[in-house]
Amino acid sequence: MRLHGYWRSSAAYRVRIALNLKGLAYHQVPHDLRTGAQRHQSYTMLNPQGLVPALETNQGVVTQSLAILEWLEETHPAPALLPASARGRATVRAMAALIACDIHPLNNLRVLTTLRSDLGADEAQVSAWIGRWITEGFGALETLVARHGGRYAFGDTPSLADCCLIPQVYSAERFGVDLSRFPRILDCTAAARALEPVAEAHPDRQPDADPA
Amino acid sequence: MRLHGYWRSSAAYRVRIALNLKGLAYHQVPHDLRTGAQRHQSYTMLNPQGLVPALETNQGVVTQSLAILEWLEETHPAPALLPASARGRATVRAMAALIACDIHPLNNLRVLTTLRSDLGADEAQVSAWIGRWITEGFGALETLVARHGGRYAFGDTPSLADCCLIPQVYSAERFGVDLSRFPRILDCTAAARALEPVAEAHPDRQPDADPA
Repeated sequence: MRLHGYWRSSAAYRVRIALNLKGLAYHQVPHDLRTGAQRHQSYTMLNPQGLVPALETNQGVVTQSLAILEWLEETHPAPALLPASARGRATVRAMAALIACDIHPLNNLRVLTTLRSDLGADEAQVSAWIGRWITEGFGALETLVARHGGRYAFGDTPSLADCCLIPQVYSAERFGVDLSRFPRILDCTAAARALEPVAEAHPDRQPDADPA
Repeated sequence: MRLHGYWRSSAAYRVRIALNLKGLAYHQVPHDLRTGAQRHQSYTMLNPQGLVPALETNQGVVTQSLAILEWLEETHPAPALLPASARGRATVRAMAALIACDIHPLNNLRVLTTLRSDLGADEAQVSAWIGRWITEGFGALETLVARHGGRYAFGDTPSLADCCLIPQVYSAERFGVDLSRFPRILDCTAAARALEPVAEAHPDRQPDADPA
């Protein structure tokens, strides 16, 4: 499989975690989002959105991180990243969607760029914007993790919820958002980060990483 | 089942379409988003996010529209709203996520309110913001529908992609976004709207509708 991504993309990071947890081999094809490389025609033929990630598989290209995670779960079911019960699966998917729909899309690069360019937002306003959506979303997620979590966000095995949570916490830390009010989220993040497959998916450990 | 929603909520509209297509009975519990009713404690106990929709089921409360759609598909599989093949399912989920992650969250009420209050956006700027994300997302979706669509967004039967698309087109029309460049999207929207279960889910036909 070939994963089109970018070291710092939250959505690509989700997919790396899932691939690693399932022990699947893949090649990485980096697209530097800072230079707009993902909008080159050679890539938009694969993914018309010109966004990362996209996963090239023996069944064709799969786009959108949530769809990729579900495809991986269906085609490589072990170890399972969704619980066995419909109710449990719904809770994990709700946690994943809370992050993937209600936090991350508001804070990604194309949106922050538009806030600056079209609405004249200064850095303090951009920072407040980022913090607002993370804090609001994590406030609800903290309650869900308290209700349904164990060692990880849902129960005692890693799930798609953790695949989405770990990159979102990375992003929050990078943007300097205060997470001290979310102890359950921090606990299960620490547990997941201690897993080597999760650690290997960290942005700084990717071939295109450029921490400077 | 009890569906907590709001007549104009795109996310609740998605769930109504799926419930209706599957022929499932449900009671509606409206929360007037304009007055912040969804943030009352009686509701946030059910859904800590204080957002609609939430579906009360005999297995407990399910939140997040994408998770609700998947739960409905797993617990009430006929008629299927996902294709049989993993590849087809991935494509339908990618279409749904394109809308539910990359268009709708940027244009919902809480975000537009924040643009006005925190960034001082005027109505022309808000309108440009809305149009930008819909046009960008629909540009890519038009290509996906051209590749994979038939009578509907994916193939010749309604799917979760249509459940997400119809409310997004409604929203685009309401905001006056020019959709003439998306003929395939318009064609499959017209086909889906002609189905009575889809038509019954329209905002104007809900008990709390207030078109004035």
